[in-house]
Amino acid sequence: MDEIITLTPIGHVENAFDERAEPDTIRAQVSRVVVDADLQAGLLGLQAGEQVMVVYYFHRSRGFDLRQHRRGDPLEPELGVFALRSPDRPNPIGVTVVEVLEIEGSVLKVRGLDALNGSPVLDIKPA
Amino acid sequence: MDEIITLTPIGHVENAFDERAEPDTIRAQVSRVVVDADLQAGLLGLQAGEQVMVVYYFHRSRGFDLRQHRRGDPLEPELGVFALRSPDRPNPIGVTVVEVLEIEGSVLKVRGLDALNGSPVLDIKPA
Repeated sequence: MDEIITLTPIGHVENAFDERAEPDTIRAQVSRVVVDADLQAGLLGLQAGEQVMVVYYFHRSRGFDLRQHRRGDPLEPELGVFALRSPDRPNPIGVTVVEVLEIEGSVLKVRGLDALNGSPVLDIKPA
Repeated sequence: MDEIITLTPIGHVENAFDERAEPDTIRAQVSRVVVDADLQAGLLGLQAGEQVMVVYYFHRSRGFDLRQHRRGDPLEPELGVFALRSPDRPNPIGVTVVEVLEIEGSVLKVRGLDALNGSPVLDIKPA
């Protein structure tokens, strides 16, 4: 299939992580999911305390090998990229379930997101 | 943000559903996730009996309203599109956790997928 799919981000992530870090370290911190203001009506019904799924783009992805060591650790066995959550994958899309801590206008404060600062956000869905 | 993200499908879905149907009806049936043969090595480590997340493109999406009735039922209250799993959304990406029934070459037989026949598959990840 040669079809190409084009997407336009609905917003972006803001947090303290400009460089790669352990996913658990990032998830422990609060991130802001800043949705474009003209899409704010799309958030109607989302509430603090809920879990939502955030779909985002690994904008710092470095291309991919079809087989990789888990966490890039050469002591780990090699697995196929589709058996791993590595950001270095054919379509560098991340999907994470997060807890909504607060919603203010078109900004969601969340905990549990493992995206780097500036990651384009593609979608938000009920978890 | 005006950036545009381009993705190339890694494969496509094959099942009996060419037209929209109740998600539960589709999920109850077996679908085939046909991964491009040149990506087969990326499946290494996936096994029958496991749950995986399938990320796919709603190729029959009809555009979107920011507020929609759940399941398109006018008797349901209106919610923001990001509080719904409607296929009619700004970036029509579906994410579903499925059970792998069988893997043969680069084809995964799965149960639990709610994608229509021909849906482009963007990613497969551990659930």
